[in-house]
Amino acid sequence: MASTAGHVIRCKAAVAWEAGKPLVMEEVEVAPPQAMEVRIKILFTSLCHTDVFFWEAKGQNPLFPRIFGHEASGIVESVGKGVTELQPGDHVLPVFTGECKECRHCKSEESNMCDLLRINTDRGVMLNDNASRFSINGKPIYHFVGTSTFSEYTVVHVGCVAKINPAAPLDKVCVLSCGISTGLGAALNVAKPKPGQSVAIFGLGAVGLAAAEGARMAGASRIIGVDLNPNKFAEAKKFGVTEFVNPKDHKKPVQEVIAEMTNGGVDRSIECIGNINAMISAFECVHDGWGVAVLVGVPSKDAAFETHPMNLLNERTLKGTFFGNYKPRTDLPSVVEMYMNKELDVEKFITHEVPFSEINKAFDYMLQGASLRCIIRMGA
Amino acid sequence: MASTAGHVIRCKAAVAWEAGKPLVMEEVEVAPPQAMEVRIKILFTSLCHTDVFFWEAKGQNPLFPRIFGHEASGIVESVGKGVTELQPGDHVLPVFTGECKECRHCKSEESNMCDLLRINTDRGVMLNDNASRFSINGKPIYHFVGTSTFSEYTVVHVGCVAKINPAAPLDKVCVLSCGISTGLGAALNVAKPKPGQSVAIFGLGAVGLAAAEGARMAGASRIIGVDLNPNKFAEAKKFGVTEFVNPKDHKKPVQEVIAEMTNGGVDRSIECIGNINAMISAFECVHDGWGVAVLVGVPSKDAAFETHPMNLLNERTLKGTFFGNYKPRTDLPSVVEMYMNKELDVEKFITHEVPFSEINKAFDYMLQGASLRCIIRMGA
Ligand SMILES: NC(=O)c1ccc[n+]([C@@H]2O[C@H](COP(=O)([O-])OP(=O)(O)OC[C@H]3O[C@@H](n4cnc5c(N)ncnc54)[C@H](O)[C@@H]3O)[C@@H](O)[C@H]2O)c1
Ligand SMILES: NC(=O)c1ccc[n+]([C@@H]2O[C@H](COP(=O)([O-])OP(=O)(O)OC[C@H]3O[C@@H](n4cnc5c(N)ncnc54)[C@H](O)[C@@H]3O)[C@@H](O)[C@H]2O)c1
Ligand SMILES: [Zn+2]
Ligand SMILES: [Zn+2]
Ligand SMILES: [Zn+2]
Ligand SMILES: [Zn+2]
Repeated sequence: MASTAGHVIRCKAAVAWEAGKPLVMEEVEVAPPQAMEVRIKILFTSLCHTDVFFWEAKGQNPLFPRIFGHEASGIVESVGKGVTELQPGDHVLPVFTGECKECRHCKSEESNMCDLLRINTDRGVMLNDNASRFSINGKPIYHFVGTSTFSEYTVVHVGCVAKINPAAPLDKVCVLSCGISTGLGAALNVAKPKPGQSVAIFGLGAVGLAAAEGARMAGASRIIGVDLNPNKFAEAKKFGVTEFVNPKDHKKPVQEVIAEMTNGGVDRSIECIGNINAMISAFECVHDGWGVAVLVGVPSKDAAFETHPMNLLNERTLKGTFFGNYKPRTDLPSVVEMYMNKELDVEKFITHEVPFSEINKAFDYMLQGASLRCIIRMGA
Repeated sequence: MASTAGHVIRCKAAVAWEAGKPLVMEEVEVAPPQAMEVRIKILFTSLCHTDVFFWEAKGQNPLFPRIFGHEASGIVESVGKGVTELQPGDHVLPVFTGECKECRHCKSEESNMCDLLRINTDRGVMLNDNASRFSINGKPIYHFVGTSTFSEYTVVHVGCVAKINPAAPLDKVCVLSCGISTGLGAALNVAKPKPGQSVAIFGLGAVGLAAAEGARMAGASRIIGVDLNPNKFAEAKKFGVTEFVNPKDHKKPVQEVIAEMTNGGVDRSIECIGNINAMISAFECVHDGWGVAVLVGVPSKDAAFETHPMNLLNERTLKGTFFGNYKPRTDLPSVVEMYMNKELDVEKFITHEVPFSEINKAFDYMLQGASLRCIIRMGA
């Protein structure tokens, strides 16, 4: 056990005091892990659009002050009572959704939406005592999706921690703890294109490009990328995207443009934006008879998905997924192995790197559409 | 060849002159079949709610005068040029949707939505020459979904005709040409409940009860029937329905009632009504993580399906189906065999019978909610 075990740790964290305002580096106190909790020393974290949505809090409930961050890698510092699967020194990825291994979802082969530990973006406290483990001079700071990785140390429920191969480079595999696995799984586990089929990817951020990568691995022949940012296409080619559609270049709705390009629609589509109109387009652009559309983007809380029911009657399928249907504890270690076996290239998703002290730059890069993933090096 | 082959046939038909007005028995002329068409002597027909929707023309485009009817059985009287698979005397079921066997849908295992012959409720003419085969004193009468079986003779595209076992009793298997196969296939081919799963059926008409029958055959343990008509439950028990929910008995939305009954939602639901709110309820009542909802009812033309995208993100699946995903020519003969082998009981769907001259009674029975299927005996 580290000498810190059982004690409050004082460390640096990037605190969001207000919606949309730059994070502020603060010294925070991190309480020891309680029953079934793990305290993790975060080594690398990266920024996902979900952090940005809840930090902006435009279409989401505001909850501040809060420590964001949910894509990360680290090492277990200490464990709370009842934790038997993990011990100090284990290399881990914290995950925004968990796996208790006991509930109906965890026992079902089809679902990863654990009753106990599924993502809850409105909860800012730990389950055990409905309190935060973070504080500044006694004033609590809220958690985000149970991970809060923009801190040198964080406390996470054991069900939200995947133990991975200790040989895996933590500065690379940190991106597998959310976006890349989400996009990859959305393609491989949910959309499941057949060899030779066409796939449309809405949004060419890291999640969308990981979905493209998954579609390519599954044998898709045409991968049509859709993005409002024309700069995205050059990079997207590296991820198997074969054609590009910018909705701004067309007067017609993008679903009609895609239907014309593909003689009636694509076989599969995967929405990786979070914009409700893009979700509707992604659904309506799939071919009738057999088309499958998969929603991945996180919608605003008052969004309404609307379509004519005839689009469904015409034998289209509409689905959604969290975390690409991967069960975090059971499946994530094998996604890390895909990287270790060179089946999956993770480096190409990492376009930027900043020290922790410059974390606000990662926000700028994402808001400018300049980055896919920006790695944030802790302790620097 | 019958002596009538190649000639116009004068016979009785029940003509809808105006939306919602009783059908009128008229003497009509039925032209000979053109290329790839078949003229059929209809022996039995039955009434499906889809006929009623387009006859009422409340939420649908009005097209009159028209000969309705699409659930029927008959015998081929003569065939047009190019028809090689059928000959006079063959026992057949006409179907509202077709199978050309050439297009991408017909060649796909997953789809029955033939590009050439899929249902088109707004077309009142034959494909070959965009004209009707029915007339009264030279004035054309429109077809309905390519079948128009409320006539002693009708002309149908060969792709919309299933040749069946000549030993099958035509007064029974006529109901397999639409509603029963649609409901059965929606359960067996699309919703596919696993043994022990729970299924909600919205609408306990013939289509819904056939879906219940399919769910029971697939091994569902709980089958929850939803209907506004409390009289439906007693009968529904014969079709495997184990529990009944009348939305009128509850203040809460029916999806919440079902979620409470089932610890979070049913595993599968099948909507067999055509009402948009029922469609939304049927979707929202399935369990997150693995639930699948299947839409079967025909919506009004201005209906909008609306739900919060989070209901999808939470790993629910939404699909629709025509004709239970059966390919009419390839698959319907085997559904008839299910009846012949006593795997499927068809008699219990037939609650009424009237002579052709009293066809309007069949409409009354359905509008009163008194019938499942009313067989209409032609030539009587
Ligand atoms: N369901 C899950 O488990 C899960 C997990 C991770 C991320 N997400 C969500 O996935 C989405 C993508 O995340 P990301 O990190 O890749 O974001 P990102 O910002 O890197 O990428 C989004 C892309 O979409 C493009 N875009 C924005 N609006 C558009 C529009 N209307 N039409 C076309 N293109 C548009 C942007 O130009 C950008 O390239 C977000 O909604 C995020 O919250 C969901
Ligand atoms: N997709 C297809 O291929 C296909 C084929 C045949 C029929 N259909 C459609 O299936 C539906 C059912 O057809 P049917 O012949 O069984 O009709 P039906 O009239 O015999 O049965 C409908 C049942 O729904 C009930 N109902 C009506 N409104 C309701 C509501 N808001 N909530 C709960 N229950 C309600 C009625 O009481 C009735 O019992 C119709 O929409 C029909 O057009 C579709
Ligand atoms: Zn994320
Ligand atoms: Zn669980
Ligand atoms: Zn019908
Ligand atoms: Zn076809």
